[in-house]
Amino acid sequence: MSRLGDNSWGKTSVRVSKIHRGDDEHGFSELTVDVQLTGEVEDAYVRGDNARVLPTDTMRNTVYALAQDHLGDDVEGFGRTLAEHFLTRDGINGANVELREHRWQRVDPYGFVGGSSERRTARVVLGADTDATWAGVEGLVVLKTTKSAFRGYPKDEYTTLPETDDRILATTITSWWKYSRVPTDTTATWNRVREVMLERFFGDWSASVQHQGWMIGQAVLEAVPEIAEIEFRLPNQHHIGFDLTRFGMEDRHVVFQPTSEPYGDIRFRIVR
Amino acid sequence: MSRLGDNSWGKTSVRVSKIHRGDDEHGFSELTVDVQLTGEVEDAYVRGDNARVLPTDTMRNTVYALAQDHLGDDVEGFGRTLAEHFLTRDGINGANVELREHRWQRVDPYGFVGGSSERRTARVVLGADTDATWAGVEGLVVLKTTKSAFRGYPKDEYTTLPETDDRILATTITSWWKYSRVPTDTTATWNRVREVMLERFFGDWSASVQHQGWMIGQAVLEAVPEIAEIEFRLPNQHHIGFDLTRFGMEDRHVVFQPTSEPYGDIRFRIVR
Amino acid sequence: MSRLGDNSWGKTSVRVSKIHRGDDEHGFSELTVDVQLTGEVEDAYVRGDNARVLPTDTMRNTVYALAQDHLGDDVEGFGRTLAEHFLTRDGINGANVELREHRWQRVDPYGFVGGSSERRTARVVLGADTDATWAGVEGLVVLKTTKSAFRGYPKDEYTTLPETDDRILATTITSWWKYSRVPTDTTATWNRVREVMLERFFGDWSASVQHQGWMIGQAVLEAVPEIAEIEFRLPNQHHIGFDLTRFGMEDRHVVFQPTSEPYGDIRFRIVR
Amino acid sequence: MSRLGDNSWGKTSVRVSKIHRGDDEHGFSELTVDVQLTGEVEDAYVRGDNARVLPTDTMRNTVYALAQDHLGDDVEGFGRTLAEHFLTRDGINGANVELREHRWQRVDPYGFVGGSSERRTARVVLGADTDATWAGVEGLVVLKTTKSAFRGYPKDEYTTLPETDDRILATTITSWWKYSRVPTDTTATWNRVREVMLERFFGDWSASVQHQGWMIGQAVLEAVPEIAEIEFRLPNQHHIGFDLTRFGMEDRHVVFQPTSEPYGDIRFRIVR
Repeated sequence: MSRLGDNSWGKTSVRVSKIHRGDDEHGFSELTVDVQLTGEVEDAYVRGDNARVLPTDTMRNTVYALAQDHLGDDVEGFGRTLAEHFLTRDGINGANVELREHRWQRVDPYGFVGGSSERRTARVVLGADTDATWAGVEGLVVLKTTKSAFRGYPKDEYTTLPETDDRILATTITSWWKYSRVPTDTTATWNRVREVMLERFFGDWSASVQHQGWMIGQAVLEAVPEIAEIEFRLPNQHHIGFDLTRFGMEDRHVVFQPTSEPYGDIRFRIVR
Repeated sequence: MSRLGDNSWGKTSVRVSKIHRGDDEHGFSELTVDVQLTGEVEDAYVRGDNARVLPTDTMRNTVYALAQDHLGDDVEGFGRTLAEHFLTRDGINGANVELREHRWQRVDPYGFVGGSSERRTARVVLGADTDATWAGVEGLVVLKTTKSAFRGYPKDEYTTLPETDDRILATTITSWWKYSRVPTDTTATWNRVREVMLERFFGDWSASVQHQGWMIGQAVLEAVPEIAEIEFRLPNQHHIGFDLTRFGMEDRHVVFQPTSEPYGDIRFRIVR
Repeated sequence: MSRLGDNSWGKTSVRVSKIHRGDDEHGFSELTVDVQLTGEVEDAYVRGDNARVLPTDTMRNTVYALAQDHLGDDVEGFGRTLAEHFLTRDGINGANVELREHRWQRVDPYGFVGGSSERRTARVVLGADTDATWAGVEGLVVLKTTKSAFRGYPKDEYTTLPETDDRILATTITSWWKYSRVPTDTTATWNRVREVMLERFFGDWSASVQHQGWMIGQAVLEAVPEIAEIEFRLPNQHHIGFDLTRFGMEDRHVVFQPTSEPYGDIRFRIVR
Repeated sequence: MSRLGDNSWGKTSVRVSKIHRGDDEHGFSELTVDVQLTGEVEDAYVRGDNARVLPTDTMRNTVYALAQDHLGDDVEGFGRTLAEHFLTRDGINGANVELREHRWQRVDPYGFVGGSSERRTARVVLGADTDATWAGVEGLVVLKTTKSAFRGYPKDEYTTLPETDDRILATTITSWWKYSRVPTDTTATWNRVREVMLERFFGDWSASVQHQGWMIGQAVLEAVPEIAEIEFRLPNQHHIGFDLTRFGMEDRHVVFQPTSEPYGDIRFRIVR
C-alpha cells in the first residue's frame, strides 16, 4: 500500500508588467511570478476529485487582478499579498510565491533600457573584389510606455486587433551598418550611433515599428557620415493589456501581459 | 537624401497544433510558422501611414483560421496555402512562409512521444549516514489527444477557465525514484519503469494532472519492488483551443495554440 | 558572530563520451556528470586555507580517468564508483554524484542518431517573379565512431591539431533543398531524403566533413530527381580525446571530451 | 552531373578574453569570434583532398595568437587583422570575420559587472507554522582581473591544475537571504545588499571562491541586521590561460579562454 507524500501545485512563469503612471513620468515594473500551493488535495490524486484544486489558470488570473492595486517597488510586499490571498481559498494551507524582477534602467521619463544581452558587433569581409567593414549592435533591449500608436491598418475577416493611440513599445534592437570609410575611432563612433538610437527611440512619437525604425535609421545616417547604409531587425515584443473587467473590476490600463511568442518581426534597410 | 531599401514584415514563431480526428485513432500535427511579407509600404516607414500594413496580429489569426481546413501532412502545401492567401491582400506583393514541424512519434492510437531532450538520470549520495541510489528520467515529452478531463474544481471571482471533458494533455516527465535495493540490471529496470510510465499515461483516463501522475506512480511502485519512493514534476503544457467562431467560422475543435509560458506545475512524491 | 552552515563544492556539467569497442560493432555512451562534495572545509571559508579543498579541476579529471574502466550501461554503477572514489580523499565526508545519459539510438553497427531537436522544415516563397518551394531538415543529430579521418591539411605556425585516420564524427544536420517540381507526396519524399542522408553518413568513409557532405548531397540529388539544388550547414561537433597518459595510465583511446564551443562550421551548396 | 556551389568553412564561437594591464588599472575585453573562409577547395569535397583546407582548429589557435598583440577597443580593427591574416594562407581567397563584444561595465580599477541577466528576486512562504520572507539576486555577473589566488590544495594522482597567485575570478552571483524582520524599505535594503556584495567582491583579496564568498556573506550580515541567514551559489566561471609558447611566441599572460562548461560550483549558507 502506498500513499501520497509531499506535494504542491501551482503556476510557473506568470509574466506581468505594470505602468506606474505619474504626471511627468512613468514608472515601469516587470515580474515573472511562480506560485506553488499546498492543501488538502489527496482526493485529487487518489480519486480524481478536483473540489479542492484551485486551477492554476485562476492563480494566473489572480496575479494580474491583484497587480493593479498591489504591484510596486516592494516586490516582497506583492509576494505577501498574493500568498495571503491564496491562503483565504478553501482547503489551501500553504503558499510559496517566488518573484523575479527584471532590471529595467530608466533613461527617459517614459523610457527604459534592459541591458541584459547587449553586444557590440563587427564584421569584416575581405575577398578578391570585396573589402567591407560593418559594425553593429545586438541585444539592445528598449521599452517605452507611451509615444507609440498603431491605427489605420487594413482590416479583413481575420482582424481582431483593436486600434490604439497609446501603447507600450518594446523591442530588442539588432542593427548592422556598413562603413563607406572606417572611422578613426570606431569605439567613439559606435557609442555615438547607440546614443542616437536611444535618443530617437525615446524622443519620437511613432505610428508603427516601421515608422519608429525609419526615424532612428535616418538620424543615424545624418549623425555619422561614414555610414553608407544601415539594416535593422526589430521584433515587436508585445505587452498585451490584460482585461480586468472580466472580474467585475475597473480596468485602469496599467496591467499588461508580456509575451515571448509569437512576435511581430520587422526588417528593413536604409541606404543613402 | 536616403531611401528605404529591402524590407519586409511578419510574424515569427506562431505555434499551432491540430488533431486529425479519425474513428479509431487521432493524428496530431504541431508546427511553428514564420511569415514575412513584402509590399508597397514605403509610406508606413516615411510617413507613418499604415493603410497597407497588414497587422502581424492578423497574420497570426490567419494561420489558425486556415489550419482548420488546410493543415495536414503536406507541410509545403499548407505553406503554399498561407502564402497564396497573403498575396490576395491589397498591396502585398511577396510572401515568405517558413514552417517547422515537430517530430511527434506515435506510440498509441491517441498518444505521441516527442523524443527530443530525454535523458536517463542517476544520482548516488554517499556519506557518513547516507547510502542512496536514485534513478530517473527527464525531458520525456508525452502528449495525448483525449482521455483527459478537468472539471469540478473550485470557482472564485478570478476563475475564467471552462470545464472540459476532453482536452489535450501534454507534459514533460521529470521523475526520480529511490531504490531500497539497487537492481542487478539497472538498465533493464530503467527501461521497465519508462515502459510502465508510457502505458499508464496513454492507457488511463485522468481527471487532472495530479490524478494522471498518481496512477503512473502507483503502477511503477507495483511493477518494480526495489523502488522505495518516487517523485514527479509534471508541467501542464497547455494546448489552448483557438476560438474560430470570432471569424464567423464553424469551430470543429481541432485547432489549438500550444503555449510555453505560463504553465501549470505539479509536483508530488509517492511513498510505500 | 556568524558561522558556516550547509555547504558543498563540486564540478557541474562534466561531459564525457566513451566508445565501447567490440569486434563487429561499437557501443557509445555520453554522459553529463555533476559532482558535489562535502567535507571538513570550514577553514577554507574562514581562513582561506585550501588544504582540504579538492580542486574541482581534479574532480573533472577523475571523471575521465575512471571512465576508461568503469563507464558502461550501468549509469548508477559509474556514479557509485565516482562517489566511493571521492570518499577516499582526505577530509571528504560526503559525495553527491548526478549523471545524465544522452539517449543515442543505434542505427548502424557504428552509428547513432540523437533524435532530440529534429524538425521537418518547409519554405514557400511567392512573389511577382518568384515561385519556390523548399523542404528541409534541422536538428538531425548523428554520430559515428569510425569511418572518418582528417589528414593532409596545410600546416602553419599555429597548427597544433594532430592528423588522424580514425575519429568520432558528429554533426547536427541542417539542410534545405529546392524543388524544381514539387513531388506529389511531399512527406514520402522527405522521408526518402532523410533515409538517404543517414545511409550515406553511416555507410561512407570520409576524409573530412566537406567530403562527407558532398557524398550525402550527391546521393540525395541522385535519389530524388525533383530536387534542383541542396544546401547544407554541418557543424563539426568535436569529441576530443582526453589524454589519460598524464595520470600514468594506459590510454586505450576510448574516452573523449564532447565540446559545445567552439565548433567547426561547414556550409555548402550542390547544384545540378 | 552536379557541381559544388557556394561554400565556406570556419570556426564558430571562439571565445577569447584579454586583460589590458596598466599601472593603476586593468582593461578587460571579451569577444566571441566567428570565422568563415572561402577558397579553392573543390577537391576537398569531391576527392577528399585536404591540401587547401586550413583546419578550423588552426583558425581557433590563430584568434588566440593574434589577440595578444592586436585585440583592443577597436573591434573592427581586430577583425581586419584576422581577415588579412587568413588571406595570406595558401588557397584562401575570402574571409568573413564576425565578432561580438560582451558589454562589461567597469566598477573598479580591476573589476567589472556584466549586467545581463540580473534579476531582483523575492520569495514569500506562508503556511500553518511558516511565515518567511526571502529576498535575493540572481544573474549578477562579476569579474575581476586580479586579487584572486588558488593554492595549497591537496594533490592526488589526477591533479593537473597549477597553483596560482593571480588569476581572473568570474562568477554569476545567485544569493537568497532570509529576513528575521522585513525591512520597511525592501528596495533600499536590496540595493544596500547588492552594494556590499560588489564592494567586497572587488575590494578583497581571496584565496578561493569559498573564501571570497565567506567575506561577502559576512559583510552582508554585518551591514543589514534584519537578515537572519544568507545562501550563495557561486559558479567558478573559468578563464583559462591559453598557452602561446606552443607557437614559439612569448606568452605575456594576457590572453585567456573563457569556458562555459564544466564549471566549479560552490554552494554554502552563513547563519548568525
